[in-house]
Amino acid sequence: MKSDLDALMQSKSLDAILVIGNATHNPPMYYLTGGGHVSAATLIKKRGNEAVLFCNDMERDEAAKSGLKIIPYSTYNYESLLKEAQGDPAFAAAIRYKRMFTDQGVHGRVGIYGHTDLGSAFAIFTILQSLMPELKLVGETRDGSLFMYAMETKDEDEVARIRKMGKITTEVVGRVAGYLTSREVRKDEVLLKEDGAPLTVADVKSRIDLWLAELGAENPEGCIFAIGRDAGVPHSAGTPTDLLRLGQTIVFDIYPCEAGGGYFYDFTRTWSLGYATPEAQALYDEVKAVYDKVTENLDLNAPFKDYQQLVCEEYEKNGHKTPLNTPAPTEGYVHSLGHGVGLNVHERPWSGLTASDDNLLKPGVVMTIEPGLYYPEKGMGVRIEDSLWVRPDGKMEILAEYPYDFVLKMKKWKK
Amino acid sequence: MKSDLDALMQSKSLDAILVIGNATHNPPMYYLTGGGHVSAATLIKKRGNEAVLFCNDMERDEAAKSGLKIIPYSTYNYESLLKEAQGDPAFAAAIRYKRMFTDQGVHGRVGIYGHTDLGSAFAIFTILQSLMPELKLVGETRDGSLFMYAMETKDEDEVARIRKMGKITTEVVGRVAGYLTSREVRKDEVLLKEDGAPLTVADVKSRIDLWLAELGAENPEGCIFAIGRDAGVPHSAGTPTDLLRLGQTIVFDIYPCEAGGGYFYDFTRTWSLGYATPEAQALYDEVKAVYDKVTENLDLNAPFKDYQQLVCEEYEKNGHKTPLNTPAPTEGYVHSLGHGVGLNVHERPWSGLTASDDNLLKPGVVMTIEPGLYYPEKGMGVRIEDSLWVRPDGKMEILAEYPYDFVLKMKKWKK
Repeated sequence: MKSDLDALMQSKSLDAILVIGNATHNPPMYYLTGGGHVSAATLIKKRGNEAVLFCNDMERDEAAKSGLKIIPYSTYNYESLLKEAQGDPAFAAAIRYKRMFTDQGVHGRVGIYGHTDLGSAFAIFTILQSLMPELKLVGETRDGSLFMYAMETKDEDEVARIRKMGKITTEVVGRVAGYLTSREVRKDEVLLKEDGAPLTVADVKSRIDLWLAELGAENPEGCIFAIGRDAGVPHSAGTPTDLLRLGQTIVFDIYPCEAGGGYFYDFTRTWSLGYATPEAQALYDEVKAVYDKVTENLDLNAPFKDYQQLVCEEYEKNGHKTPLNTPAPTEGYVHSLGHGVGLNVHERPWSGLTASDDNLLKPGVVMTIEPGLYYPEKGMGVRIEDSLWVRPDGKMEILAEYPYDFVLKMKKWKK
Repeated sequence: MKSDLDALMQSKSLDAILVIGNATHNPPMYYLTGGGHVSAATLIKKRGNEAVLFCNDMERDEAAKSGLKIIPYSTYNYESLLKEAQGDPAFAAAIRYKRMFTDQGVHGRVGIYGHTDLGSAFAIFTILQSLMPELKLVGETRDGSLFMYAMETKDEDEVARIRKMGKITTEVVGRVAGYLTSREVRKDEVLLKEDGAPLTVADVKSRIDLWLAELGAENPEGCIFAIGRDAGVPHSAGTPTDLLRLGQTIVFDIYPCEAGGGYFYDFTRTWSLGYATPEAQALYDEVKAVYDKVTENLDLNAPFKDYQQLVCEEYEKNGHKTPLNTPAPTEGYVHSLGHGVGLNVHERPWSGLTASDDNLLKPGVVMTIEPGLYYPEKGMGVRIEDSLWVRPDGKMEILAEYPYDFVLKMKKWKK
């Protein structure tokens, strides 16, 4: 939680942290400012102190909504900086950082964070490091960074926001199911739009975007709506021109966030419209059985990867390839069981077999459980995913309930 | 244009470029891959050679849509990398980069690019630089980078896509105008929703998001819909709870991009509903006169900042503060005249008084012209903005025409 930041800084021997970039679509900055229309900002927080936010003068009102102390960039006259830097903008920016650090009394080890332009940052911080040899700029890999540890456990307000996104997500999933099952079906089992043209993956996706916008969400990373062979490739987003047909597996993985950037939800169902082939039904039943086994056996404070191990063992018993015995398998069970969800659609805790031992199902964690099986050459794939909250009382609660039907009955079609 | 990349690499003495991150919402990667559902990818391009794209195995189908040569990350076994790195993920990633560079025959000066996680990149590239001292990793500031220069001029396909976004943008602006002017108005001049409740900025924004989604666009950076005092603060996005009232300036600045990330359009109109105060009307007329003067006098290959100079001089004549004589003014004319638009909502050419002399209105440039005047303490602000294409024949074409009415007539209200 955010209140852990000072302790995390201490444990990582950081005297200060520096976060740069926009306030939206930039999780560390969003986390500390609450988002808003603030671009190219600079946040400095010394250990044990409140954060200070530097921003463009034009965005001072937006920045003030963060509740932080605001200092406009114009405090440091850009034209004189540029002159001092002999016209080199990277050098001018580095001098400005030096002034900001000096004025804030920053010294020692400084962690740097932000989802931002890499080239600029690398150029500027290389110069800054040479201008301030007494300072040590420290990069942390995202997955093990201070922010990933702080964000790993959510407070009640954050859980409420994720839960609300879950409600929006499942509402949209329900509308998609309702729309698909009310279609007319052509003789060759292709679904038709209102105007009689075949229904495509692109058509479905544009409805998803529309419904998300209507309900106050956005889709910054798109979504997966993959049918047939595409369903067998876990991160295939689906082919826009593919037609919707009966009796094929459809993997629908949707992970929207609050409009304007913010908290995500992550959810998947696999459907077969009208009927299922016996092979697809068997695959689905296998995935559902493992899903149930995992969700019924989650223990408070257990290492997340123990359940990845369990899932691999179950699937290996049934003859599927898994990461346990096959490096980077391309069919069978090919990914890890789940991940944390918050301001990042993927965040701590991690569940991969190589995840560190401190990825635990601690109170306050919100994580996905998403086993799947994939056979692209057979034209099918199945994944089932919900986002769960590890409650303070140790119960694991699915934040948005939704039925697990595999075959969706078509209202205007009979076998 | 993209075809300039090798020459730009030559002029910047770069032997290769490295682009990292997702394919969407990451302009350099989008530019070279065409976007798509590809995350945490690595692109290496040696000068004079085609680019090579490394990606997660699960995303190989999506990556292949780029038409580039695809190499899955699994070529480099992650578990052995991690072992070699004694469990340090940043070190393991650095070793993988070293292998990729070696296998691709990369040497010399390598420019690094991408909108991505700064902490990870800084950690990894610091190690990589020490592992490969014979290589020189070079960061360029975004605004002067190779990509900004390449992207500055658009080919016909890019212009067509920006034009299409212009059509969508002005369609949405028209719908907003139609919606506002058909509202019932309360005695105190507040607009009402269908249900009789007062209409808020948040209500208008949610309709904007909905209509954008419906038309195939997205709003990754939000939009500005600011009324009264907020209209006087150029980058205030507007206060969600503000009510829509007659006779107040409304600055509506909208800059959506193609759904799934892609090309932007940038557009602003200022309205006063029902009637305008004489002071606001005078401010509007002044801005419109300067807008006309600029757009009628744009010369092919002229430095963009010459027109910023012109606008400042015009406004100073009329007694307004401008950047010409006031550093960072907070009222009057407080920003620069315009900027390029493409995969970045703000890109080259730049028009600020400190912009370098090579920011020219060259054929292929798409740029905004957006003079404005702001008086937050008087509760008003005006900006007029269109995006223009510098055509190969030297004409400056507004890519999406839209009327310049200031006072919008209310259908159900009479003064």
